[in-house]
Order: sequence, then C-alpha cells, then structure tokens
Amino acid sequence: MSIVLDYLVMLPGPTNVPTRVTSAMSTPMINHRSGDFRTLYKDIISKTQKVFETTNDIVVLTSSGTGAVEASVVNLIKKDDLVIVPVNGEFGTRLADLVDNIGGRAIRIKAPFGENPPIENIKEAFDNNRGVKALYAIYNETSTGTTLRYMDQLGKLCKNNGAFFIADAVSILGGDHLPVDEWNVDVCVTASQKALAAPPGLAPMSISNDAKKYMIENPPATQYLNLKRYFKYFGESNETPFTPAISLFYAYREALDMIIEEGLQNRIDRHKQCAKAVYAGLEEFGLTPFAKENARSNVVIAINYLQGMDDKKFREILSSQFRVLLAGGFGELKGKVFRIGCMGEVTGYHIMRTLSAISSTMEILNIKPKGDGLSVAHDILTAL
Amino acid sequence: MSIVLDYLVMLPGPTNVPTRVTSAMSTPMINHRSGDFRTLYKDIISKTQKVFETTNDIVVLTSSGTGAVEASVVNLIKKDDLVIVPVNGEFGTRLADLVDNIGGRAIRIKAPFGENPPIENIKEAFDNNRGVKALYAIYNETSTGTTLRYMDQLGKLCKNNGAFFIADAVSILGGDHLPVDEWNVDVCVTASQKALAAPPGLAPMSISNDAKKYMIENPPATQYLNLKRYFKYFGESNETPFTPAISLFYAYREALDMIIEEGLQNRIDRHKQCAKAVYAGLEEFGLTPFAKENARSNVVIAINYLQGMDDKKFREILSSQFRVLLAGGFGELKGKVFRIGCMGEVTGYHIMRTLSAISSTMEILNIKPKGDGLSVAHDILTAL
Repeated sequence: MSIVLDYLVMLPGPTNVPTRVTSAMSTPMINHRSGDFRTLYKDIISKTQKVFETTNDIVVLTSSGTGAVEASVVNLIKKDDLVIVPVNGEFGTRLADLVDNIGGRAIRIKAPFGENPPIENIKEAFDNNRGVKALYAIYNETSTGTTLRYMDQLGKLCKNNGAFFIADAVSILGGDHLPVDEWNVDVCVTASQKALAAPPGLAPMSISNDAKKYMIENPPATQYLNLKRYFKYFGESNETPFTPAISLFYAYREALDMIIEEGLQNRIDRHKQCAKAVYAGLEEFGLTPFAKENARSNVVIAINYLQGMDDKKFREILSSQFRVLLAGGFGELKGKVFRIGCMGEVTGYHIMRTLSAISSTMEILNIKPKGDGLSVAHDILTAL
Repeated sequence: MSIVLDYLVMLPGPTNVPTRVTSAMSTPMINHRSGDFRTLYKDIISKTQKVFETTNDIVVLTSSGTGAVEASVVNLIKKDDLVIVPVNGEFGTRLADLVDNIGGRAIRIKAPFGENPPIENIKEAFDNNRGVKALYAIYNETSTGTTLRYMDQLGKLCKNNGAFFIADAVSILGGDHLPVDEWNVDVCVTASQKALAAPPGLAPMSISNDAKKYMIENPPATQYLNLKRYFKYFGESNETPFTPAISLFYAYREALDMIIEEGLQNRIDRHKQCAKAVYAGLEEFGLTPFAKENARSNVVIAINYLQGMDDKKFREILSSQFRVLLAGGFGELKGKVFRIGCMGEVTGYHIMRTLSAISSTMEILNIKPKGDGLSVAHDILTAL
C-alpha cells in the first residue's frame, strides 16, 4: 500500500492517511440532495455496518468523536437519569461530567489511571441502584492507553438490567475486536481519524432499535446532534438533515473499502502484532508502559518517561529530526508519559521506524537504551 | 482559474470548488496539537478576519452551518430571554423555533416569503418589549432567495437597545457586503461550502468582545458547541478543543487566499454582475423571480416554475443531460420554485452555461423561452 507521508503520524489520531483515501477527496463536488449523494451515503452505511459488525442503524455526523459522544448522551440521558460510567482516565472523567452537566446522575466506577475497575464494582453499581438507565463504557481510554477487556460482559449486564449499553469506541474501532451486535452495544461511537485511518471530521455511530425508538420519542431541544432528525432524513430520502462534509465522506468510504479488503480479523491481528512489537521493543530499551499489563491497549500505547526525558524536547527531536509524530500526555499525565498511536494502516515499517527514532532520540538525550529493542520488535513483526 | 468539474454545481451550497482548493486537501496529515496546526489555524483566523472585515475573535467549527447557528444560540440565549427574529422563510422559522425549544422566547417579525419585513416592525418590537436580549437576522434567506438590505440599520438598533446582534450569513458571506465591525455584528456565522467556495464541513464564526465575555461567563452544559472551550484552547495554545477536520482546514485556507487575492470588493461586484445577468436572462425567458425586487438576493436566486415545468423532470434533465445542478424548493416552496446558487467562484461562463441549459431544458419540456435571455445575459456580463 502506498502512503504519501511527510510525517510518520504515530498519534492516537489523526493517523497516517493512505493516498487512496486522500485522493478520494478530489472527487468533484455533488449535490447532497441528489441520487449521487444517496448512493454514496447508503454505500457508506452498509460498509460501516460491516466494520461495526452490526445490522443497527448508522449515522455519520460531521463532527469530531466528541460530537458523537455528546450526541449519544443528549439523545439518551434526561434529567435525573442514573448512568454508570467506569472512570479511569480523562475521557471517562469528561463523559461522567457531561452526564452530570446535562442533568443526569453519573455513578462513577473509578479505578486508578492505567487500570480497569474490577467488573464486580460495575455489577455492584447495578445491584445498588434501581432503574439504571445506561452504562457508558470508554472501550479504549486514549489518555492512559488502557482497553476495557470485558465489554462483552458489560453488554450482558446491561441486557439483564434493562439498561442501554453505550460504547465510546472513538480510538479503537477498526483496530480491535468490537462486534456490536454480539456484544449487545446499543450505541457505538467512533471517529474517522483513528483506527479507521480516514482524515478527521466525521464521527460514525450505530444505534440499536431500542435506542432509536427512545431517541425518536424523546428528542433533545437542539438540532445539530439531534439524532431523530438524522433518522427522519435517512428514512425519507437516505440523506442527512444538514450539509455533510461530502469530501470526507468520499475519503471515509475509501478507508472502509480498505478495511473490508483486508478483512477485519486480519486488521485486528495486525494491530495486535504491531502493538506487541512496540511494547516489547520499548521495554527492551528500558521503558515501561503506563498501563497495567492486563489493561494494555493495542491501539494507543502510553509509556512512562524516564528521568531526564523531557516531554517537549523528546517529541521535538522526534518530530523535527526524524519526522515521527508522537503524542504527549493528557490532563494529569501531561509531561509524565508519551503516547504512540498504533492504529489504522500501521505496519511493521511504521513500528520499526518509530522504535528506531525513539532509540536514536534517547541516545541524543544521553539516555542509553538498555537493550536491543529493535531486534526484539523485528522478531515479533516477522514471526509467522 | 482552473476548475475541475464533473457537474457545474450551481447550488446554494455546496458550490464549485476550485482545484487549488481541492488539491490543498492532499496536504499530508499533521498533529492538531503541534506548531504545524497552530500556524495553520492562526493563518486561517487572520484571513477569516479579513474576509469578515472584523477584528473580533474567530472560531472555526467542524460542522455544517446549522451547527454554528446553533452554537450562536446555545451560547447566548438562556431561559426566558427575549429574542427578535425576522421570519420570512424556512431558515428564519427554524431559528425562531430553536430559540423557543431551548427555552428562550422568540418574537417573530413575520413577512410573506419572498419579502422582507419592514424595518419599522423590528423597531416596534424593540419598543414594545423591555430587555430584548438579542436580534437574530438571517442575512440571506436561502429558501426564498431574499437578502435583508438593512443589516447596517439593525446593527445600530441593537446597539441602541443593548441587544446582541447575530447575523446568520451562512449562504452569503463572501458573496455580498458584510463588514462585521462596521455593522456592529456581535456574532456572524457562515459555512465553508457557500460563497466561500470551499468544501462543506466547516463553519467559521466571529464573536465580539461583549458576546465572548457573556459566553465565557454563561457557558452551556454541553461540549461540542460550547464556545468557551474554543476560546480557552485558542487562548492557551492556538488550538481547537476537539480534533478539527484538518484536511478541510487546508482547503478553507486556500479558498480564503483566493478571496483575498481577488479582493473582497471585486468579488462582491462579480457576484452582483452574475446575479444581474441571471435575473435578466431568466426574465427574458419568461420566468419570474420568487422574491420581490427590493429583496432579491445576489447569491441565491429563487425562480417560480411556469405551469408544465415539473420540478423533478426539469432538474433531472438539467443534471443528467447538461450536468448542471440546480436546487429545488424547500419546505413550503417544494415543487414551486427552483433555486440557483450564484456564489463562490461563479463567473460569466457558469452563468451562460446555466442559462443555456435552462433554455434548452425548457424547449425539451415544450415551454418555449419567450425571448433571447442568453443575449441579454451576455450583454450584462460583458458590459464594462
């Protein structure tokens, strides 16, 4: 696959966008109220369903992932609704705050950053609170590099308790396993620029029949994130209620095509293998992941800085001398960790170049890598 | 100027996007938390200020125009706030409804569609209501092809009454006169895909110091359209709070460059001349504009169908046989009018090809054009 790169974009979104996806944005402009658009949108929806592994309704918002997460809240949560939110990072914190801000009552199931709360604590929250309306789970906590490994069980728990199950899969969908229907996810939210490897600006989401029915009967007062309007327009004419980012829709379709051509399982395996190589290589260098082993993400890898590794200096050298982009820490972790996006069209080449640049940058900063992480990573990447 | 076209996009948005703008979207991906992005965003903001003729703060949302209009409402209007809204079309209706839906109290100053309400009625509304919080004016009513020709006076009226003045300039900014500071516009909202001639997906808006202060002190409960967050991120680091549609930002900057290179006054004159040719040409064909003469827009031209001109058939022939895209009517006007977007990079070529295609399509539908509208238009377009 050919990728035009200036930077090697190893961020937790945006990620490297393949030229085939970029080129799709040059498709000449069309009318968003026409058969041309309807054909495009229907195609996008059926391909999104494949990637989400769902038969649920799909809505593609022109917004960041935050917009779609907010849509999942303002369309489902009303005054005094009880909402369980596992909180172990910035995005969980934000989500719980949003629930409270709009009048719901968030029940925060906390765990130290870098760990997942024991699922028993979530079960208990259901047992101790009558009439829980919904459970919001951040499947992948981008700020800390952790992934909730019991999403399937959360789906069952929600089903048994008559609660909506909402998965914030913004930084993970397309890079790890998330069979929406099998896991009983009522609302699944993601964004175009993460593991889907399209440019930023779109936020696809799936909505179950039960959630859709509720949203249609209880729409929010506002317009732009009012999903009832999206259902209405799509139902009547396969269009969106407001002018969509047409060029990005073309790019997103191309990205979906690439995912389907590769096959979802192959793609997930590739992410897993790349992540394994990153973790092993960096540990060999003497670096340690921020997340506890059983919570580690395959798509966003957060690494503790060693003493003497200044965040700004480290990433500045990587960016200007090696043109490799990594992210810094977020919120509480600012300056304490760096984060590698291992997502989208990531391959062995991306990993080796990134590890090589990190190793070289450590040398420049007079922090000698402990061992030969490059060989360790190479072995993992080339293992059958 | 070279434009790659499949369709001639004569819609009231999206419009024809010049190749230079389209090509900018291929710029390799960058980190939205980096100097690369900050440079891009600052450049966009200063160029947007030029085009808005303002020194006010600029925010560029990743959303449609509706998103930015909604932002102007949810950040300014609180429970029971009195809001004057001239209503003479679908977008005025929607805006007034949104104000009511979120708990404000819209004072609708109605006029028949196709006409502007007398400014005296708006003055009276200020006189008859104490403590009006804001006046929302749809500068160009896209649904009917009318432009409010007394925006400058509305600005003075608001100033004298201590009310915020908000201009919904979604379908007009860049195509007609709108000096934000001179006209005392507190919040001016537009969208990328209209007279600015970029692809859809971005909504630039300007916010005065007074409005900004109010928004910072009274933020809404939600996140995505919460302008306080945009001010905070921009103030701290010249970034956006949520991942922006980076590729569209590059396109939008290029579109701004084209506007500045041409010169705002030249651009407005060009729109005016093109519109004059369209109106005169179509009237010569025997068609009549929907809007009353003193309210007619230079950017969106709504034309009444003659008997026997079926909307679907007419626009289908134009689209499939001539590859010219026109829009149909909207809401109440569905099937009764067609609409021509005369905006963005529109030139004499676009106008002549459109008029020629309309004339030919009328012939195909057995409705003989009355007179030689093509020569009439050509004379106007080639007049010095």
